[in-house]
Amino acid sequence: MPNPTAAILIIGDEILSGRTRDSNTHYLAGELTHHGIDLSEVRVVPDIHDRIVAALNDLRATYSHVFTSGGIGPTHDDITADAVAAAFGLPLDIRQDAYDILAAHYAATGLEFNAARQRMARIPEGAALIENPISAAPGFTLGNVHVMAGVPTIFQAMVASVLPGLTGGDPLMSQTYRINRGEGVIAEALGVLAADFPDLSIGSYPFIQNGAYGSNVVIRGQDAGRIDAAMTRLADLFPGED
Amino acid sequence: MPNPTAAILIIGDEILSGRTRDSNTHYLAGELTHHGIDLSEVRVVPDIHDRIVAALNDLRATYSHVFTSGGIGPTHDDITADAVAAAFGLPLDIRQDAYDILAAHYAATGLEFNAARQRMARIPEGAALIENPISAAPGFTLGNVHVMAGVPTIFQAMVASVLPGLTGGDPLMSQTYRINRGEGVIAEALGVLAADFPDLSIGSYPFIQNGAYGSNVVIRGQDAGRIDAAMTRLADLFPGED
Repeated sequence: MPNPTAAILIIGDEILSGRTRDSNTHYLAGELTHHGIDLSEVRVVPDIHDRIVAALNDLRATYSHVFTSGGIGPTHDDITADAVAAAFGLPLDIRQDAYDILAAHYAATGLEFNAARQRMARIPEGAALIENPISAAPGFTLGNVHVMAGVPTIFQAMVASVLPGLTGGDPLMSQTYRINRGEGVIAEALGVLAADFPDLSIGSYPFIQNGAYGSNVVIRGQDAGRIDAAMTRLADLFPGED
Repeated sequence: MPNPTAAILIIGDEILSGRTRDSNTHYLAGELTHHGIDLSEVRVVPDIHDRIVAALNDLRATYSHVFTSGGIGPTHDDITADAVAAAFGLPLDIRQDAYDILAAHYAATGLEFNAARQRMARIPEGAALIENPISAAPGFTLGNVHVMAGVPTIFQAMVASVLPGLTGGDPLMSQTYRINRGEGVIAEALGVLAADFPDLSIGSYPFIQNGAYGSNVVIRGQDAGRIDAAMTRLADLFPGED
């Protein structure tokens, strides 16, 4: 049975303007790979309601899971919950369970639970809350869409809450072989190897180090024995490397 | 007149598996912003022909420019040129101008100009070459699609060749104001400010430092005077910060 698939939807003007470097994609990509869910697409869209809704509806119809990052805070530019509710055609209102979590958090910290903060208790009807052990304001899962905060520490904590509950397939394993020769030298033999192991994904990633060309060959698959076999062939072709 | 728009299409299994962290998006996002081209979407797709073709046709119909990264080297997994030719319905073959550039490069470096390396001279009909001052193998521009290498140093050199030739609009300017208070405290006043300056984009980005919450407020727009006016209002609202 093929692995479940996933997409990441990053909601963020600050990524598109070049102000901020997205780190959530790289983190979640690694976690999904370990969990046996194949990350198949990443999209970054601006903080524009219709763009978020369109991307959500496209991605949730295509992949087993969609993970979103960003736009669930208390300010005027936090519009992700509204967009998710609109995408599903469901009402969005302050929900008692989320409200109680936030009320307890602000009571404990002595901060005012004002209108802006109460906005973070707006959860689409039928969604399950995702725990936020850092700043209390919950994310939520609605259907196959998992809505999480953009702040990396909170994003990571939410991934840790969500992922164990999702059915994974076979983890994608990989081995890397470093060859101190340019891709042009190894390309032909590598193409033959790839044709001989159609069940594996064999990728070649060039690098330049101290002015010299090299290639990292990455062999990925779900069967450790097959990966070992291909790695052995590769080491025979280009011995003495690593 | 509104600025031209752009999308970035990253072709890369290695990004989706979590092995490699994409850095080309962040670089190009900053360059486009300076040049007055609005980056409106980023997509990452796997090294799968049909996925690349579908994303290319979607993005090139939607935005003024599409910049691709990755998949133009000599190995079996370098399939971007094939996908671009297929997306445009144009033939792909070894082209003399690209062949000559590569032949001269390998003659000068004393390396064999073998079949794998000749593959990098395959350019879709009608495309204009993009210079590669680092490793010679050219990128190309076809219609509104700019096809560039994934290796960051080469990607950046190609961006430097392409961007001056593209018509830019007004550069997007921004100023950031750091407030050592959580978003929940500033959200209401910020919402009023955003409503008073509908021509600006006012974003709030929370952070956690030494266990305390803070907010970076970024004001973006194309009129420096308006940004200054909004910054003055913001500093009056939350004095003594910065």
